[in-house]
Amino acid sequence: MICDRTPPPRRILGIDPGLARVGFGIIDIDEDGATLPRLVDCGIIQTAAKTPLGDRLITLYDDLHTLIEQSKPDLVAIEKLFFYRMGNTITVAQARGVILLAIAQSNRPMVEFTPAQVKQALTGYGNAKKPEVQAAVTRELDLDAIPQPDDAADAIAIALTAHYQNL
Amino acid sequence: MICDRTPPPRRILGIDPGLARVGFGIIDIDEDGATLPRLVDCGIIQTAAKTPLGDRLITLYDDLHTLIEQSKPDLVAIEKLFFYRMGNTITVAQARGVILLAIAQSNRPMVEFTPAQVKQALTGYGNAKKPEVQAAVTRELDLDAIPQPDDAADAIAIALTAHYQNL
Repeated sequence: MICDRTPPPRRILGIDPGLARVGFGIIDIDEDGATLPRLVDCGIIQTAAKTPLGDRLITLYDDLHTLIEQSKPDLVAIEKLFFYRMGNTITVAQARGVILLAIAQSNRPMVEFTPAQVKQALTGYGNAKKPEVQAAVTRELDLDAIPQPDDAADAIAIALTAHYQNL
Repeated sequence: MICDRTPPPRRILGIDPGLARVGFGIIDIDEDGATLPRLVDCGIIQTAAKTPLGDRLITLYDDLHTLIEQSKPDLVAIEKLFFYRMGNTITVAQARGVILLAIAQSNRPMVEFTPAQVKQALTGYGNAKKPEVQAAVTRELDLDAIPQPDDAADAIAIALTAHYQNL
């Protein structure tokens, strides 16, 4: 082939924010829509509970910068925070601020979704349970098993939501 | 004088976290305790409400790095977050995460105080009102007027708390 006219796939990085564990999932979308989205990579960034908070935030920041630099996503999708447990919300929000900073510094476009928006996009209703969302992720990407760990599967669901919303 | 044996003063940077306005106050303490703490500088870092959140976090991060690099504090004191308004708490916590990151990256020691600890240290009781804390700041630093704006005065109070606790 002298000239490959196939456009490069569009890459979306999904992020499930947290302090102890940040889930990430990277999917590639063919612009012609003829094939299913492909899972490129997924996993978690972890920080140790016994480490001082400042050092944990540095780890999140550095690892996220590396992840974005290496994966070069065209779009970053991240879950919005909601109040679930009083104490934990401040902790997760502080970590999320550092994640938002790293994304903004990368100059890549970002979209945010609520958990209900992700459930709606993946299963058709906003009150879906976690196993239903995981089953949808597995089916939509034609995988043999549910991606592990849970935070990684959640992050893939967030990336797929951006795809389904044509963002 | 051939040899100045006077030890350099100890410098404390106090920070009142926020997204729209971060107050800061820098005080110098003579190690011999013979003189009152001296106010070196105070003010606020501001971010515009109409600017995208990511850009506001970048401004906070960059300005705080510059402030720490230029003022070279021996200790950084920052207020802990408490839940005051549901919506606002996540916003302030995200900004505080970025502030904690910048402090941690500077490798300078950090202490945290609750608002009640600051009030207790400045006035002798944890339920003091804001004017009482501001009056104490003005008196303790032998100033002619209350430092402005309020966020800067709050940040000085946080720095003074670290001094009174011998941190």
